[in-house]
Amino acid sequence: MNYDLILKEIHKEIQPLYNEGKVASYIPALKNINPKQFAMSIQLFDGTSFHIGNYNQQFSIQSISKVFTFTLALHLYGKDLYKNVGHEPSGDPFNSLVQLEYENGIPRNPFINAGALVTTDLLINKYKDETFEKVLAFIQEISNNKDIVYDKEVASSEEQTGYMNFALLNMMKSYKNISNDIKEVAQTYFKHCSISMSTNELSRAMLFLANHGTDPLSKKEFITQSQAKRINSLMLTCGHYDASGDFAFKVGLPGKSGVGGGIVAIIPNLMAISVYSPQLNKNGNSLIGTKALELFTTKTGLSIF
Amino acid sequence: MNYDLILKEIHKEIQPLYNEGKVASYIPALKNINPKQFAMSIQLFDGTSFHIGNYNQQFSIQSISKVFTFTLALHLYGKDLYKNVGHEPSGDPFNSLVQLEYENGIPRNPFINAGALVTTDLLINKYKDETFEKVLAFIQEISNNKDIVYDKEVASSEEQTGYMNFALLNMMKSYKNISNDIKEVAQTYFKHCSISMSTNELSRAMLFLANHGTDPLSKKEFITQSQAKRINSLMLTCGHYDASGDFAFKVGLPGKSGVGGGIVAIIPNLMAISVYSPQLNKNGNSLIGTKALELFTTKTGLSIF
Amino acid sequence: MNYDLILKEIHKEIQPLYNEGKVASYIPALKNINPKQFAMSIQLFDGTSFHIGNYNQQFSIQSISKVFTFTLALHLYGKDLYKNVGHEPSGDPFNSLVQLEYENGIPRNPFINAGALVTTDLLINKYKDETFEKVLAFIQEISNNKDIVYDKEVASSEEQTGYMNFALLNMMKSYKNISNDIKEVAQTYFKHCSISMSTNELSRAMLFLANHGTDPLSKKEFITQSQAKRINSLMLTCGHYDASGDFAFKVGLPGKSGVGGGIVAIIPNLMAISVYSPQLNKNGNSLIGTKALELFTTKTGLSIF
Amino acid sequence: MNYDLILKEIHKEIQPLYNEGKVASYIPALKNINPKQFAMSIQLFDGTSFHIGNYNQQFSIQSISKVFTFTLALHLYGKDLYKNVGHEPSGDPFNSLVQLEYENGIPRNPFINAGALVTTDLLINKYKDETFEKVLAFIQEISNNKDIVYDKEVASSEEQTGYMNFALLNMMKSYKNISNDIKEVAQTYFKHCSISMSTNELSRAMLFLANHGTDPLSKKEFITQSQAKRINSLMLTCGHYDASGDFAFKVGLPGKSGVGGGIVAIIPNLMAISVYSPQLNKNGNSLIGTKALELFTTKTGLSIF
Repeated sequence: MNYDLILKEIHKEIQPLYNEGKVASYIPALKNINPKQFAMSIQLFDGTSFHIGNYNQQFSIQSISKVFTFTLALHLYGKDLYKNVGHEPSGDPFNSLVQLEYENGIPRNPFINAGALVTTDLLINKYKDETFEKVLAFIQEISNNKDIVYDKEVASSEEQTGYMNFALLNMMKSYKNISNDIKEVAQTYFKHCSISMSTNELSRAMLFLANHGTDPLSKKEFITQSQAKRINSLMLTCGHYDASGDFAFKVGLPGKSGVGGGIVAIIPNLMAISVYSPQLNKNGNSLIGTKALELFTTKTGLSIF
Repeated sequence: MNYDLILKEIHKEIQPLYNEGKVASYIPALKNINPKQFAMSIQLFDGTSFHIGNYNQQFSIQSISKVFTFTLALHLYGKDLYKNVGHEPSGDPFNSLVQLEYENGIPRNPFINAGALVTTDLLINKYKDETFEKVLAFIQEISNNKDIVYDKEVASSEEQTGYMNFALLNMMKSYKNISNDIKEVAQTYFKHCSISMSTNELSRAMLFLANHGTDPLSKKEFITQSQAKRINSLMLTCGHYDASGDFAFKVGLPGKSGVGGGIVAIIPNLMAISVYSPQLNKNGNSLIGTKALELFTTKTGLSIF
Repeated sequence: MNYDLILKEIHKEIQPLYNEGKVASYIPALKNINPKQFAMSIQLFDGTSFHIGNYNQQFSIQSISKVFTFTLALHLYGKDLYKNVGHEPSGDPFNSLVQLEYENGIPRNPFINAGALVTTDLLINKYKDETFEKVLAFIQEISNNKDIVYDKEVASSEEQTGYMNFALLNMMKSYKNISNDIKEVAQTYFKHCSISMSTNELSRAMLFLANHGTDPLSKKEFITQSQAKRINSLMLTCGHYDASGDFAFKVGLPGKSGVGGGIVAIIPNLMAISVYSPQLNKNGNSLIGTKALELFTTKTGLSIF
Repeated sequence: MNYDLILKEIHKEIQPLYNEGKVASYIPALKNINPKQFAMSIQLFDGTSFHIGNYNQQFSIQSISKVFTFTLALHLYGKDLYKNVGHEPSGDPFNSLVQLEYENGIPRNPFINAGALVTTDLLINKYKDETFEKVLAFIQEISNNKDIVYDKEVASSEEQTGYMNFALLNMMKSYKNISNDIKEVAQTYFKHCSISMSTNELSRAMLFLANHGTDPLSKKEFITQSQAKRINSLMLTCGHYDASGDFAFKVGLPGKSGVGGGIVAIIPNLMAISVYSPQLNKNGNSLIGTKALELFTTKTGLSIF
């Protein structure tokens, strides 16, 4: 397939959408980003990659980090993880305290904020005050790239305004589903979210999930085949907040979005993909990014369905 | 792959589970079924099929009928259908009125009861008092089998005890999301649910969904490729009530279960599968059926993830 | 106190409010009522009464009937009643199914629709197909007036459009909190609601509740002192749907409103009051009626607080 | 009436209840209190008072402080207060985040935790870092007692374990219904709750609310007559969390309870009452205290209904 051509077509077709969508405003440090950006990267198993747009432009990965922290926690805890966090779609907006209250502080899944906070808390149980460094090292390793860092200004901005995340942490603590100090969990979580990566780097980082848990280039097995299957199914059913069904419907790939404007997706046995465009639709997912992926599976017929 | 051998292994491995699970008790006519039954059928594109157990034993398809009525409604209405019924996971038990009330009578998706009742109402708009006959004829056509009928005793039993479905209908009527007479919608819906089929017949009926909407044997196109993709994604995200995430996690295939004990599933571009075993797990899905499908994707590596 | 003068002052002061509020539109037979009506009646223990406006104009008592059916059920069942219906404020709009679902079909109190339907069901257990006649006879007795009847057109209009009430009945039936046939319970309930009375008649009917359960004129004891106390406290905490707190706040009397535009209230040991004005505020209570009662307790200092 | 005799009778009749109920365990500093205590005080307008039990034993007033902070806030803000906090019963357990989320961070009423936190925040707007001192001075003034202080150990214990209150604060901050620093609001609130008073002191402090806002002994007007009416109606409809309806039903007086085991109540135009007994019923109200008040209104016929 001529991926270069397909990417060029997509780039052309998304142009009329630049005036729709809105950059996330609730994280002050993200508000001033140039809204009219687009990048898309494809990473194949043989090392070949295809790109369009500013594919080396780094942006805040935000909730995409949830895939990486969940991967690490699943590797460390195995099925025990499901005592503290579920794996069902939430069917409610991404910050909802309601479901959490009715379910006694056990979040529905690790891809909503509450679930990712629990995952972070579990990582702190193991790694203590080296937790963030371990997470960053893991992301550097799957990306084969030692230069990935986090943006201190974004992390600090999130900490100062992240009242809903503090509400979630306090509530789960009252249900005894958070073990560590609330401030420590929050700071670690905000650092993960503030890691900066480009679509080039993200598509490389996701490659092992497209290949049953083993990086096809370095041949390193990061997780088992069975665990990779579970992470991918979770991305499909829960990867896009309240629009997960819609994303499965339109794009038909396991994927995860972040409010920074990035989306990652994988096609099992074939490739990893990443897109970036900071303007969001009403569900908090990159508007142009979602459209670009929809065009990609339509043009290539590579939906998993 | 040696499907005969795989089915035999599965048959053996599910034996210890016969004492777990419970036959659905809320439909009186289903209560007295022999609980210790198992059947599994695989249908390939070239007409070959593989079976184990009582694969010609007919049972009540119940909610599996929601796949067929949704298919027909999508064929008739296209995207207009989404004005009346959504396509997001519900994240709540299958009869929940709560979400429906907060969302003004628009059901989350067509695979929960409320959504299937709306779908039935929309079919009645088009087919009037021939609706059930049209649905049955459609199922006969995709199954290539004129002998499929419904069980009057089960339908009448459901009508006499289906208070929650009547509650849903009345509530949606108050929100003007039901156009026709409540009793007529209910009776038509209960007839669909009471259709009797075997795993042999169900796997044949589902074949067009594994092949982008076109029956690979008769070459008839029942729906478009794009619509087939959408139905399959919906089965994956919403096909098993409050355990949809768990099914995607463990089995990794688009599928739909019914409280009669049946499950259907498809592997895109390859096959349709059906299992039957009447004892249900706590989420209302066939306990042995779910396990059999999990064993099948594990043994064959044919999960879509 | 010069009640005649006070009523005249109130009549004058409510004039500017005739253009606010809206007549209830969801019961077709009530829609065409002249909106600009007002009446107010005061009934003292010595038989004296004071009136203003069209105090002999009959109107649909609607939810005011809930006070009478609850009184009768409390008389028949005593504390056993609380197995089927609670006595706490609902804190939610008057038709809400949500709370009912979370509380397994036991309504919060007898003054929301669900609770009054359960009360009616319990009366049918005792009085069988004479239930409505018994309720009507009870109202005639406490009113000392054999001429009170119900409006067939209103009852039939409610039955044809009362989908939410049918939803509530079906849902509670599924939780086994309704024993009788749904249609019979609904028809009996709609008849109660459709009883026509004037403010003159209603203030007379409520007199026993102002006097510890015994009619001060006929000396008949309809309920015990303790039961009267309970009914009055319920009217205060739950008598005005989602605005019960506001009514207690502003008026400070036990009272009950109906969407027909009537309100009844009592001042313990002193009097019964009734007002009528068909235009409703956003909470479904008579806008001018509520204001008139607020003016009355302000002018007389007769709030219970 | 012979109040001495009535108090003695009550004291005798509550004896068999000492083994029911449970001391609040979620505030560590309260856990070790002697559970078998009882005190009751009556304060009349002429300065006469009647007591039974350890009526000079001080205990943590906890949520009773909400009456005092609301009184002060109503005095300062008048009706503007209702922009930030409602006056309807909550119909949900006292810590519920659910209703708060559906209602955009505006608490139902000032007597649930969320509402009292908002009230505290509003007081801080006016009194800055002197807020707690001003509240304490106000309580000392209405009590005519300069010796009232708070218990530092209890306040600090609450701050260290009050995760749910921090969750509420963070959530309301995210809805912009908290203006000040979360830690400051929390510390001020926990200090109010940790004020120690005896039934003797509490019944004296409540006297102005029984007399339309003016202390009948010192003749000082603390709030207007209209405001006193509103506070009393709020105590009746919302004073006992999820058992407010039950308290109105059984006791029939405006009152407010605290998890420390105290309850205050007033009889308009006549007296203020306070009871203490630390074992709580399932709704978090003093079990013996509630019973004692029920016996009191039954014996004296002084229910407001």
